[in-house]
Amino acid sequence: MKAVRYYGKEDLRVEEIEEPEVQPGTVKIAPAFNGICGSDLHLYHDGPIPPAPTAEEAHPLSGETLPVVLGHEFSGVVEEVGEGVDHVTVGDSVVVEPLMVDGTCPACRKGAYNLCEQMGFIGISGRGGGLSEHIVVESQWVHPVGDMPLDQAAMIEPLAVAVHGVNQTKAAAGQVAVVGGAGPIGLLVAAVLKAKGLTTIVSEVSAARRTKAQTSGVADVVVDPTQDDLGAVVSDQTNGAMADLAFDAAGAPPVVGQLLDVLGAVGRLQVIAIHTAPVQIDLTGALMMQDRVLGASVGYAHDHAEAIDLVRSGKVDLAPFITSTISADDIVTEGFERLTTSQDEVKILVSMR
Amino acid sequence: MKAVRYYGKEDLRVEEIEEPEVQPGTVKIAPAFNGICGSDLHLYHDGPIPPAPTAEEAHPLSGETLPVVLGHEFSGVVEEVGEGVDHVTVGDSVVVEPLMVDGTCPACRKGAYNLCEQMGFIGISGRGGGLSEHIVVESQWVHPVGDMPLDQAAMIEPLAVAVHGVNQTKAAAGQVAVVGGAGPIGLLVAAVLKAKGLTTIVSEVSAARRTKAQTSGVADVVVDPTQDDLGAVVSDQTNGAMADLAFDAAGAPPVVGQLLDVLGAVGRLQVIAIHTAPVQIDLTGALMMQDRVLGASVGYAHDHAEAIDLVRSGKVDLAPFITSTISADDIVTEGFERLTTSQDEVKILVSMR
Repeated sequence: MKAVRYYGKEDLRVEEIEEPEVQPGTVKIAPAFNGICGSDLHLYHDGPIPPAPTAEEAHPLSGETLPVVLGHEFSGVVEEVGEGVDHVTVGDSVVVEPLMVDGTCPACRKGAYNLCEQMGFIGISGRGGGLSEHIVVESQWVHPVGDMPLDQAAMIEPLAVAVHGVNQTKAAAGQVAVVGGAGPIGLLVAAVLKAKGLTTIVSEVSAARRTKAQTSGVADVVVDPTQDDLGAVVSDQTNGAMADLAFDAAGAPPVVGQLLDVLGAVGRLQVIAIHTAPVQIDLTGALMMQDRVLGASVGYAHDHAEAIDLVRSGKVDLAPFITSTISADDIVTEGFERLTTSQDEVKILVSMR
Repeated sequence: MKAVRYYGKEDLRVEEIEEPEVQPGTVKIAPAFNGICGSDLHLYHDGPIPPAPTAEEAHPLSGETLPVVLGHEFSGVVEEVGEGVDHVTVGDSVVVEPLMVDGTCPACRKGAYNLCEQMGFIGISGRGGGLSEHIVVESQWVHPVGDMPLDQAAMIEPLAVAVHGVNQTKAAAGQVAVVGGAGPIGLLVAAVLKAKGLTTIVSEVSAARRTKAQTSGVADVVVDPTQDDLGAVVSDQTNGAMADLAFDAAGAPPVVGQLLDVLGAVGRLQVIAIHTAPVQIDLTGALMMQDRVLGASVGYAHDHAEAIDLVRSGKVDLAPFITSTISADDIVTEGFERLTTSQDEVKILVSMR
């Protein structure tokens, strides 16, 4: 079968590999669409870092070394179910929660399997990936999506990241939230917040991304923090009470300070972007004297069902975020290179059909 | 009447001033015991900083300039009640929640009056203080304590700080908490945690304070972080799962890092000590990759009733923390100076009887 395999830095190959076979407790899926993610870009530009294996060192759970099939944000159709699998049937549209966990570490025992000590991703750490004609996945990670369009279903994975981050904050209808950064995750966070009845203020330096936040309907207000006074806008929107919540979906140190500055009393900043270096935090002035909370979260655990429900119920519309659909043969030029240079793209899907 | 008044840096005077008169909606109290607090020490050694007024600039709520009567941690006996006051009666033992708030700012409207924009303290910002023979207080701040000994009642105020900080974390029976710093607030936090059924590990560099944490029964385990490996102790106590909660009651930057290092997955660090400079936080490694939370809190709001109940029910014993009782005339030599130099003192009470 055809698959896109990752060999290392700037080395992706579309090649023929052996087709996997269904086993008891697994589901064989024909991937339909696969989104390209920031993690994929990092692997492509910078070479393998954990949870990816290297050519010499296998991932502890998959036992595989490079090359691995790429692609962890994908939808597909069930082709075959193994013995003992009864929650999906042949022909069902599904998404894969693309994880491998050991299940016995302290985090897994708490149910926080997103923090598993050995954590791996299908499509990064081995066990196949969405960028192939077939994949076999343990049934616990396969979620049916009903009649959801398969292209939108390929965005359930990043939507689950947004759901997880938002749910950590106990966001409630009527609150005001500021989202810093309108890349794919920032936009999806704003979408989840809107679905839960919050007012959203999106702060973003790129005009194209601000426009997307506005035209997609996920931002009630957009702000260019290099031109406008974000604090004044938030104060105006809240009659001086300032924001209940803020989300750092940018990962730039100044944004952390900007977002703490626009929080009101007992506000919470949730960091859902990677920071490559420690950040100075004024624990007393910015947190303590306002009983504030700085939370941070990664991935998802038990969040896919809610993400699927938000889309199926019409509360979140993922269509505006799919900006291009390309073929696997064009993945480098039309996918990785365009995402690196263009501010107009949100999610580029690779069609495997 | 006799009162201890604060005139500014290193200038406390015991003098005769006019006795206040009860008004409608107020309670006249004869203070019994008044604890000396870290805030009092700062004012004494460093001079007035907000919420204290200066000789020229009045506090916005009290309208008073220096001098002010000192003392905000106090118990006493009701001498007279004003018109409309019916929750206490003459002869009742009471404590005062020593606040003045505007009641209309965004924080007050949320019920978080500890974060009032104009926040003042009785005993720091004006309106009298505990270090006097009589004080008149708005009835909403007067809490009856039943048959609680009046010396212990003088520690209800710092106990409310501990209750407030612990309650922000949703601490639950069966969890393991590490407390960094065993000064008065650290010891009281450990006491509240024990009362709620947690296992407490207290990390403290001073041998005298470690001994107090142990003999008072609030620490299950004490650690000298300069000698012992705190992480190894916590790992041992938790079978490798590490701590659910940590409390920074030290205010030293290295302690923040030490406490983040001993948290398990989805753990929370609560900062309840003042940090005089920003602290570097590894948002990604120390927080995000473990879905952790860094909270910080100050003061109390709606916490006095729980603090009083913890003592009256016998769940918290404040007696071990009262290390000296002195007279008002000795407040500088036996109070302020001894607290500054001795590690053996926890709480020094000034008897006003």
